[in-house]
Amino acid sequence: MTENPLYTKHAETLARALTAIAERDYWSHYPESPSPKVYGEHAATEGKAAFEAYLGKPFPLDQPGDRVATEQSPFGIPLEIKYPHTDPETLITAATAALPGWRDAGPDARAGVCLEILDRLHQHVFELANAVHATSGQAFVMAFQAGGPHALDRGLEAVAYAYAEQTRHPATAVWSKPGKGAPLRMAKTFHVVPRGVALVVCCNTFPTWNSYPGLFASLATGNPVIVKPHPGAVLPLAVTVRYAREVLAEAGFDPNLVQLAAEATNEGLASTLATRPEVKIIDFTGSTAYGDWLEANARQAVVYTEKAGVNTVIVDSTDDFDGMCRNLAFSLSLYSGQMCTTPQNILVPAGGIDTDQGRKSFDEVATGIGEAVHKLAVVDPAKGVEIIGAIANQANQQRIDQARAAGEVVLDSIELTHPTYPAAVVRSPLLLKQRGDAEQVYGEEWFGPISFLVATDSTEASLAVFQRVVGARGALTAAVYSTDEQVLAEAERAAVAVGVNLSCNLTGGVFVNQSAAFSDFHATGANPAANAALTDGAYVANRFRVVQSRRHLAAE
Amino acid sequence: MTENPLYTKHAETLARALTAIAERDYWSHYPESPSPKVYGEHAATEGKAAFEAYLGKPFPLDQPGDRVATEQSPFGIPLEIKYPHTDPETLITAATAALPGWRDAGPDARAGVCLEILDRLHQHVFELANAVHATSGQAFVMAFQAGGPHALDRGLEAVAYAYAEQTRHPATAVWSKPGKGAPLRMAKTFHVVPRGVALVVCCNTFPTWNSYPGLFASLATGNPVIVKPHPGAVLPLAVTVRYAREVLAEAGFDPNLVQLAAEATNEGLASTLATRPEVKIIDFTGSTAYGDWLEANARQAVVYTEKAGVNTVIVDSTDDFDGMCRNLAFSLSLYSGQMCTTPQNILVPAGGIDTDQGRKSFDEVATGIGEAVHKLAVVDPAKGVEIIGAIANQANQQRIDQARAAGEVVLDSIELTHPTYPAAVVRSPLLLKQRGDAEQVYGEEWFGPISFLVATDSTEASLAVFQRVVGARGALTAAVYSTDEQVLAEAERAAVAVGVNLSCNLTGGVFVNQSAAFSDFHATGANPAANAALTDGAYVANRFRVVQSRRHLAAE
Repeated sequence: MTENPLYTKHAETLARALTAIAERDYWSHYPESPSPKVYGEHAATEGKAAFEAYLGKPFPLDQPGDRVATEQSPFGIPLEIKYPHTDPETLITAATAALPGWRDAGPDARAGVCLEILDRLHQHVFELANAVHATSGQAFVMAFQAGGPHALDRGLEAVAYAYAEQTRHPATAVWSKPGKGAPLRMAKTFHVVPRGVALVVCCNTFPTWNSYPGLFASLATGNPVIVKPHPGAVLPLAVTVRYAREVLAEAGFDPNLVQLAAEATNEGLASTLATRPEVKIIDFTGSTAYGDWLEANARQAVVYTEKAGVNTVIVDSTDDFDGMCRNLAFSLSLYSGQMCTTPQNILVPAGGIDTDQGRKSFDEVATGIGEAVHKLAVVDPAKGVEIIGAIANQANQQRIDQARAAGEVVLDSIELTHPTYPAAVVRSPLLLKQRGDAEQVYGEEWFGPISFLVATDSTEASLAVFQRVVGARGALTAAVYSTDEQVLAEAERAAVAVGVNLSCNLTGGVFVNQSAAFSDFHATGANPAANAALTDGAYVANRFRVVQSRRHLAAE
Repeated sequence: MTENPLYTKHAETLARALTAIAERDYWSHYPESPSPKVYGEHAATEGKAAFEAYLGKPFPLDQPGDRVATEQSPFGIPLEIKYPHTDPETLITAATAALPGWRDAGPDARAGVCLEILDRLHQHVFELANAVHATSGQAFVMAFQAGGPHALDRGLEAVAYAYAEQTRHPATAVWSKPGKGAPLRMAKTFHVVPRGVALVVCCNTFPTWNSYPGLFASLATGNPVIVKPHPGAVLPLAVTVRYAREVLAEAGFDPNLVQLAAEATNEGLASTLATRPEVKIIDFTGSTAYGDWLEANARQAVVYTEKAGVNTVIVDSTDDFDGMCRNLAFSLSLYSGQMCTTPQNILVPAGGIDTDQGRKSFDEVATGIGEAVHKLAVVDPAKGVEIIGAIANQANQQRIDQARAAGEVVLDSIELTHPTYPAAVVRSPLLLKQRGDAEQVYGEEWFGPISFLVATDSTEASLAVFQRVVGARGALTAAVYSTDEQVLAEAERAAVAVGVNLSCNLTGGVFVNQSAAFSDFHATGANPAANAALTDGAYVANRFRVVQSRRHLAAE
C-alpha cells in the first residue's frame, strides 16, 4: 500500500502532536492570536465577509431534505440561515454506506485526512470565529481563540491519541513458537475496525471546542460521524461539516463520513439518532439531565458525556490579595460565567483570611472580589462586553433573576448596553453571600453568571464542603488559594479523592476555567460532571476494536 | 520516592512483557509443560499434597464470617472445603479502606506487587492446577496449562497493559508558554486515580484463565478487588486470593486489596455486590443472560463482559482433509466442548467440497469429522478422558440429551467411564447434521459438546449464514478452510464486518479454541459475545482516571 499523500503532508505535525501528548508540556499548533501579523492583513475582513455571505440564505451543504432555520443570536445579529434538514434514516443509511471504505483506508490515511480537515478549517478560522461569536454570545476574541485555534488544537490532540492507540499494535506479526521439532509459525493480521456510526451532540455555548475532540476521535478511528448541533448554534458546525466534506471528497472518500443533522425546534433529533442500533458512539456536552438520559437509554452505544457540576474555589489565605481578586473576577466574568468550568462556589472562612494586606474579614474578601468584577465588567461597558459577551439563551437569563433571592447580594447583576449590538442581551455577573449551612442552595448548579461566596467555619470545613458537594454533584474545575503548603497538600488530597482537577494560587494570566490542549486534561471522568476526559487513552481506545486473523506459515 | 523493591525485582520481566504486547509475536513467561524437567522432580507431588490438604477443611483465609462449602467436583473428588462467608458490607468496607494506600503507592509499586503475586502463584502452580482440575472437570494437563501458566501469562499481559497505560503520561510536567514578556510557567502534577472497588465474577469452567486478566488489570491500576468465584469452582480463586493476600501483606499493603467473596448456594451475591455504589468496575465471564443483566443494572460501574456466542467454521475446500478433520475433532472434543471458544456450527456446502483426496460429499465430510472425534475421544477412553475431561455441571449434561432431537445424529454422545474417577460424569461429543434453513435451531448457542454440521447451498451461503448468526448472537471464534485465496479473503472481510477473530486452515498443532497470550486477542468486543477483548488498551484505560493539579512556577 502506498502512503497516503495527506499522511505524508502532515506526518511531521502528527509526530509533534504525539510527542506533545506524551510529554504534556506546552505545545500548540494553531496560533491563538487573531492579529493581522499572524493571520495576514485581510484574513479578518475576508472571514467576516464569508460569514456574512451565509446570512439569510440556504447554507451551501449538499445534503438532502427541506430546510430549517432555528438560530437566535445572543447579540441580535440576524441569522436566518437555512440548513438542510436531512431525515434520520437518510443520515444513518449514508453514514453506514460510507464506513467500509474509510475503515479499510487505515489509521495513517485517516490521520492525514483529519489533519487536512483541521488545516482547512484553520484556513477559514475567521469565518468560524464569526460563526461562534454570533451564535454563542462569546465576545469576538474569545470566540476566535476558544472556537478557532483552541478547538483545532483539541481536535488535533484527539487525532494524535486516536493514532497512537490504533498503532500501538502492529498491523501484522509472525508468531513462532519453539517446540521439539520445527517451530509452530503463524502469520497474524490485526485489523482496526470502527464501532459503527458516531453521533456528536453539540452544545450552544462552545459549539466547536466541545465537539471537536469527539468528532475527530471518532473520525480518526474509522467511524462515520453525524454532527447534531444545538439548534441555537448550528452555523459553526455547518461550517465545520462543509469543509470536512470538501476535504473528504477531494481525498477520494465519501463526504457522508461527516454529516450535519440540523433539526427543527423541539424535534428531539438527538434522542432519535442516539437510540438507533447503528449508532455505536455518542459524544455529548450539555445538561446533566440529558447526559444521564443518554447514558440510560443509548445502551447500544459507548457514551461520552460532559455534563454540569459545581465548580468550587477554596480560599484559605493568599500572598497576593489583589491578584487573587483580579484572577477570580476574570474567571467569574469571562463569557458571563457560561463556561462549564466557571467557579460557582467560593468557600471562605467566616472568620476571614490572612493576606499580604493583613487580615481580611469574610466581607472584605467578598467586597474585594465583587469590586474586581465590577471594575472588569461594569465600569466601562465597552471593555466589559469584550469579556462577558452576551447571555446565550433565555434560560440563563431567567436563572439570574431567580438567583437573586438565593443569597445576600454582594454585587448585583445589571443589564448593560452593547455598544456594537444594541439588541444584545448583556448581564453583568451576580455575586451572592451564603451561609455554610445553606448547602441545599449552593450545593446545586446555578449555570450562568451566578456565584456564591460561602462563609464556612474554617478551611477544614471548606474542604469538607468541597468534598461533599463535588462528590455528589461533580465539578469540572477546582481551585485553592493558600500560603500554607500543608493546606495546599490537603486540598490536593481532597481533589484526588473526589476526582477533580485542581489549580493552586492562580493570580496571573492563567485562569481556573481554561485548560490548555496537549497539557491540561479537561474534566477527569472521575466525578459526576463527566464520564470522560479530553483527551486521554480511555477517550479513544474504545472507539474501535481489533479483529485478527491468523494462518499457518511454512516452517523456516 | 525510593523505588519499590518488588518493582526492581520484576522490572526486567515487565519490560519484556511491554515489548511483547507491542510486538504481539510469540512470548510466554511461565513454562506450559508440567514436566519434572521444567518444574523439578517433586513439584507435582507436592502440589497435589497441598491440594489434598485443603479437602474437607476450613480454607486457610483470614477473612471474617461463617463458612460455606458449595463445590461438587465433576470428577466426583470429595471437596467439602469450607470457605469464609464474608458479608457484602464487610467486603466493601474493607476494600474501600484499603484503597488510598494502594492508590498512593503508584504504578511502579503496584506492578511490582502484581508480578510478585503472579510469581507466588506460579510457585504453587501444581496446587492451582489440581484445584482447577477438580472443580472445572478439565483433564489434568489442560487444567495445568490453561489454569496455570496460560492464566498467569494473561495476568501478566494485563499488568503490562495497565502499566503502559498509567505511564503514558508523565507524573509531572512543566508547562512554559511563550509570550511577550517572561513565559508563563506552571508545574503540573498528574495523579493516577483508581475508579473504586472492583468486582470479578468468575466462571465455573475457566476459574483462573478468565478471571486473571480482570483481576490484575484492576489491581494494577489501583483498585481493590473482590473476587466472587462461581459456587462450583471456588478453590482455584481461594488459592489465588490466599497467595495474593500473603504477598500484599509482606509488601506492607493491606491484604484486603484482594478478598474472596464465597457465597452460599443461590445467594445471588454477585448481584448484591455488583449494584453497590462503591463498586466501579466489574469483570464477568458467563452466560449472556447474566452478562446482559449486569450491563443493564450495574450502571454505576464500568462493566466488562465475556458472554456466549455461536462459534462458526466455514468449510469450503482443503488440501489436507485428514488434518482438517483431526484438527476440528480436537477442537470439538477438548474439555467436552465446554470452552467459550469451541466451534458449534460447521458450515459445509450440501454439494460437497474439493479436497486433496478428491471431491468429498457433505456426508463424507460429516463422517470424516465424526470418525476423527470418535477416534480421539471414544475408542480408547483412558486416552479420551485426558482430552474431554468431565462435564462441569448438570445443565451441560442435560443439554446434551435435549440436543439429540435437534438434528440428525452423525455421532452420538455416550457415557464413558473414567479410569481414575469412577464417579466422574464423562460424555463424548455429540455431532448433528442440520439443514441450512434450520437457522432457528443452530442459530442459538448450545453450550457443551454439541456441534452441528450445517448443509448450506454454497460457500457464499455459508458466509451469509456466518454473518447473520454471528452478527445477531456473537462469537468468540471463527475458522475457515479453503484452498482458494479469494474465499479466504471473503471470509476475512466477513469476519471483519461482524467483528470476530478468524483462524484460517488450521490443520496442525494450533486450534481455533486456543489463543496465545501476548499475541492473540481473546474476543474482540466487536460482536455480542463480549464487550471487551483480553487484553488491549480499551480493557485497561478506563480502570483509572488522571486527576491533575497545577501551580505557578517563578519565571526562569
